[in-house]
Amino acid sequence: MTRACICTIGDEILIGQIVDTNSSHIARELNACGVKVAGMLSIGDDHDSIISSLEAELSRNEVVIVTGGLGPTKDDITKKALAELSGAQGWKEDEEQLAIIHRILHSRGLDVLDINRAQALVPEICEVIPNRLGTAPIMVFRFASERFGHPATLYALPGVPFEALGALKDVIEDICTHNDLQKITHRTIMTYGIAESALAKRIEEWEDALPQDIHLAYLPNALTGVRLRLSAYGEALTQQERIEAEIAKLKGIIGDVIYSYEDDTLQNCIGKLLKQHGKTISTAESCTGGLVASMITSVAGSSEYYLGSVVSYANSVKQEVLGVPAEIIKEFGAVSSECVGAMAEGVRKLTGTDFSVATSGIAGPGGGSTEKPVGLVWIGVSSQSGTQTYKLTFNSDRKRNIERFASSALYKIFKKLEKELND
Amino acid sequence: MTRACICTIGDEILIGQIVDTNSSHIARELNACGVKVAGMLSIGDDHDSIISSLEAELSRNEVVIVTGGLGPTKDDITKKALAELSGAQGWKEDEEQLAIIHRILHSRGLDVLDINRAQALVPEICEVIPNRLGTAPIMVFRFASERFGHPATLYALPGVPFEALGALKDVIEDICTHNDLQKITHRTIMTYGIAESALAKRIEEWEDALPQDIHLAYLPNALTGVRLRLSAYGEALTQQERIEAEIAKLKGIIGDVIYSYEDDTLQNCIGKLLKQHGKTISTAESCTGGLVASMITSVAGSSEYYLGSVVSYANSVKQEVLGVPAEIIKEFGAVSSECVGAMAEGVRKLTGTDFSVATSGIAGPGGGSTEKPVGLVWIGVSSQSGTQTYKLTFNSDRKRNIERFASSALYKIFKKLEKELND
Repeated sequence: MTRACICTIGDEILIGQIVDTNSSHIARELNACGVKVAGMLSIGDDHDSIISSLEAELSRNEVVIVTGGLGPTKDDITKKALAELSGAQGWKEDEEQLAIIHRILHSRGLDVLDINRAQALVPEICEVIPNRLGTAPIMVFRFASERFGHPATLYALPGVPFEALGALKDVIEDICTHNDLQKITHRTIMTYGIAESALAKRIEEWEDALPQDIHLAYLPNALTGVRLRLSAYGEALTQQERIEAEIAKLKGIIGDVIYSYEDDTLQNCIGKLLKQHGKTISTAESCTGGLVASMITSVAGSSEYYLGSVVSYANSVKQEVLGVPAEIIKEFGAVSSECVGAMAEGVRKLTGTDFSVATSGIAGPGGGSTEKPVGLVWIGVSSQSGTQTYKLTFNSDRKRNIERFASSALYKIFKKLEKELND
Repeated sequence: MTRACICTIGDEILIGQIVDTNSSHIARELNACGVKVAGMLSIGDDHDSIISSLEAELSRNEVVIVTGGLGPTKDDITKKALAELSGAQGWKEDEEQLAIIHRILHSRGLDVLDINRAQALVPEICEVIPNRLGTAPIMVFRFASERFGHPATLYALPGVPFEALGALKDVIEDICTHNDLQKITHRTIMTYGIAESALAKRIEEWEDALPQDIHLAYLPNALTGVRLRLSAYGEALTQQERIEAEIAKLKGIIGDVIYSYEDDTLQNCIGKLLKQHGKTISTAESCTGGLVASMITSVAGSSEYYLGSVVSYANSVKQEVLGVPAEIIKEFGAVSSECVGAMAEGVRKLTGTDFSVATSGIAGPGGGSTEKPVGLVWIGVSSQSGTQTYKLTFNSDRKRNIERFASSALYKIFKKLEKELND
């Protein structure tokens, strides 16, 4: 089995200034194509540590993926260390990357400085995968068996997550081409509104009866719900059909909480339904402060069905812009079924959309009471056929509460769309 | 200098199922008390790898902190591996932890099973720090100099972040008591609107003249700009004043792009200024789809100064809710100085705030033209003293463009607030 180590380089990780999210992403992709991640490692911006750690990992693994330390500034020393490690005799300028550097800087109205140009310089011994999203090229160093006792390849990726993940597809492709990997088939199912432990309980019997070579993983996420990933190993030819058979059984058990049978997001599923039926949507948000709108508009092409939103943080905005009657706020408070229903109806009328969703709650840390504690949210969904409201409670910090409020709002409007549009 | 390694144990990290956030927290605390984190490591649930990796780290470091693998289930094997590594001859039951286990399970209405009780069992050779938040005790193994060439201590913490961080204070205290620690002072400066390379160019001379024992790191981030971190080692008594002297010089060189002299965010700096002067703000967003609002309201207490927003994705909403004249959109288009200025003024009037900020641009992937390409954004900022508009261009994917549009909008309104409120 092909083994890999993921190494992150940068003092900022060792002093705890940033959390390394790259390694987790890379590990998932490596696993998905049948590479076993045997270890992860973070090293500081220190020439000798970089070389000795990477040498040790290359002798233990066929694949070593390095991220970070490729920036243009003086504290980024990975490239020089890699040149030494690889025994490169000189440097070469990668034309394709240089063109990208020019394009990126020009588009931002910046001149190409010497330190920018230097980013296209790589040890002459390495191969280059162009980084289309940033200035530092991806370097590939291939070591013959003599060096570490087995053929080994080192991939150096930039540390910026956006760039590292953008380059990952090409890197994975290269790994698949150069190693004899076991085939694995993966399928993902998206659930929402059920806790990981409750989900595990509901599918316990099914999970226990899974064939030996089909693995299940739970991937909980506040914004997308619990993602279930099924991976089939073993006989490559029948992987697909065996996995489909398990999914069919699963649908019978938890079909009510599944919102997609592929790796997807709530906002994308909402967009697909609206586009398919030529319908429009708007949002009215209090406690979620624009996050619901932001999630809906994160989908490319959302302007086709998303018309707009009001973030009514202050009660005056709820009343004057959304037309929520002052009496409702006075009698029931802003965090109430009545208010959130009026907000949903108000924004639908204001923007002239077919559907709308509204939120009003208490994200914390302050502002709660015994009756209306921090973590309480009311969600309203509205269409011509009627308005429904839902009360939910969570128990977390402000950021997490807002995320759960927003994704719950998306789930509620998704269920309404599904019911009213698909029937 | 006392050196430490942080080791995370668990297959769930190596398959990328969870992101390790413990290590970053622990690293921050260790650095703050003068322990240099020389490396971080993730190992799978494999007996031999655990032992060989920890032995290697104990010979390189005085402190090794292990998290994870202490749960009650079969796949948690850290404790057994540690018993072997430490040469422990037998096991002892920790009474204090057993009492905590009883208390925790009873409070959740659960019986104490044999596997729960077994969690209070530890190798007889170790010291115990009770884990008050969970069932697995913290184990402390002290190794005499003979074993690894220097005195070394291994701390084993549970993997659950809440429990690991809860125990951290006691662990840090133990480390401080048992090691002669050097002090390190860190200072962070936040910049915005300047690329990492351009920043490096501007401060090149200053950076080259930095004393040997003051280190500089660049930490770019799309939402907060480039963060500069200065770390002073060496003579503890003068660290603070030497770092302040360097910051004073830096202020003279790049004061115009610095928005904070501590680790901060734009939205937080905006909030502080508004609160301090009792002023209010609103937002009108097109292309950023609610992200500006969401960032502003991510700050606890933002309801004091943030009244609301309109996300005017459709032109009809721009006209009817924000009052942008139809002629402006017809003559100049929605992505124009005129439109974004009218949006900013419109939302300020609508919500009755002192300040407002508006965005209109093309996030992509579609919708661009030669004249108005994907990545173009107009930002408008408005107050009673006037309205200003700015044109910026970026060159990225949809998600990243939206992030840069939103953080640029925050920066522009921050500069306006700073100018009008601080003068």
